[in-house]
Amino acid sequence: MELHRPTILISNDDGIQAGGILALAEVARAFGEVIIVAPDSPQSAMGHAITITKPLRLWKEKLSDGSIGYACNGTPADCVKLATGVLIKNNPDIILSGINHGSNASASTIYSGTLSAAREGAIQGIPSIGFSFCNYDEEADLSAAKEIARIVITTALRQRLAIGQLLNVNIPNLPLEEIKGIKTTRQAMGRWVEEFEERADPHGRKYYWLTGKFLLQDTREDSDEVALRAGYVSVTPLTHDLTHLEMYEEVKKWEFND
Amino acid sequence: MELHRPTILISNDDGIQAGGILALAEVARAFGEVIIVAPDSPQSAMGHAITITKPLRLWKEKLSDGSIGYACNGTPADCVKLATGVLIKNNPDIILSGINHGSNASASTIYSGTLSAAREGAIQGIPSIGFSFCNYDEEADLSAAKEIARIVITTALRQRLAIGQLLNVNIPNLPLEEIKGIKTTRQAMGRWVEEFEERADPHGRKYYWLTGKFLLQDTREDSDEVALRAGYVSVTPLTHDLTHLEMYEEVKKWEFND
Repeated sequence: MELHRPTILISNDDGIQAGGILALAEVARAFGEVIIVAPDSPQSAMGHAITITKPLRLWKEKLSDGSIGYACNGTPADCVKLATGVLIKNNPDIILSGINHGSNASASTIYSGTLSAAREGAIQGIPSIGFSFCNYDEEADLSAAKEIARIVITTALRQRLAIGQLLNVNIPNLPLEEIKGIKTTRQAMGRWVEEFEERADPHGRKYYWLTGKFLLQDTREDSDEVALRAGYVSVTPLTHDLTHLEMYEEVKKWEFND
Repeated sequence: MELHRPTILISNDDGIQAGGILALAEVARAFGEVIIVAPDSPQSAMGHAITITKPLRLWKEKLSDGSIGYACNGTPADCVKLATGVLIKNNPDIILSGINHGSNASASTIYSGTLSAAREGAIQGIPSIGFSFCNYDEEADLSAAKEIARIVITTALRQRLAIGQLLNVNIPNLPLEEIKGIKTTRQAMGRWVEEFEERADPHGRKYYWLTGKFLLQDTREDSDEVALRAGYVSVTPLTHDLTHLEMYEEVKKWEFND
């Protein structure tokens, strides 16, 4: 008797031709049937945007390893919506997003397109994992990241990652043998301190490039950014219920009036 | 001796010429100095997107009530980043976003551009409030919504809404005298069930329009959507720490290995 081979939906935010999505698909094929639906162009920092003012298109595209995926002209969250709403009759068993070329720890959890694809899965009740490798070079060697992804997927399937559960996995930019381990973490407190670079166009009009420096405001060893800097893989379970429970108790005592 | 008049930054996602932002600015001027920085075009459902692949521009624009605001070619979150990074020397005392033409309760908390402007403020440590009126008509009568906004701002300033605190205020589509009260709430569990409308372009190629129906999966009286349907204004305190704390305790027990 054959065991059920899971259906695995893969997306990302670096676009369908990025090296990271090929690497993740290669890892995932050992676990089940893989369907790739990803943006046709890079969609970094798209947050949880969805497309409601233009029509979406979806087409087959050959990836550089010869396999076939589906490209979409929308955001990462759109890709997951189209995959579950149009392409796949039943929901996939799990959604994997990435491997992102760059970190999605701390405040980047909020801006990340990689995580919005995974979060969209979680909202729909599908267990989902986002993978990010702390190296922004698109040509980076992904072999350590692939091995970590394999171990995390093995563990998550064994532990029966449940309906609506969402993991944010960040992998430090180190050779496999220098990675100290895999740590369950919290989102580190921190933020980007913006530094806008002001320039003038050939017509003399000002414009701004958004740049910035990450400011870590956390020292907890079990926070994702601190764990990464210490050489660990961080695994942060994420919620999509954004209620601030402590503040909820406080605001309940307010009297709303003049 | 004069009291300190707060500096109030106002943004939205419906664009700088939307009726809702004028209404909010009119209310806010009673409380302090108002600066408007908003997208030059509608940015609904932009989630927490930011712009890193094209330059941002910022220009003065006359609003339909004759006042002057700043328009920006970016997302709601970009507007707040530009306002605090380029326009204003010191951080504003409070950020108000809206009044959005349409609800941002339950799952829409995640997709909302209105809330991303407010959330960006909270990440930067600025107390922030997002206002949404549960009527999608851009010509809707906003008088009840304005009165509710006035009461909520009065209360939040009196209670000294603190650094990094963020409120999501949704106002039911009712005349003021039929609104039952203002309730502190949680984000209701629910999701959009997608229904893609498939069409063919004049060349016979398929495309899809994202539509959908909201599915409420919550019955708690103190959840935002349930409170709204019962005729209350909902005030949901939001966090930008997305760690799932219960799941964190569970995943800590996992052994990550083959």
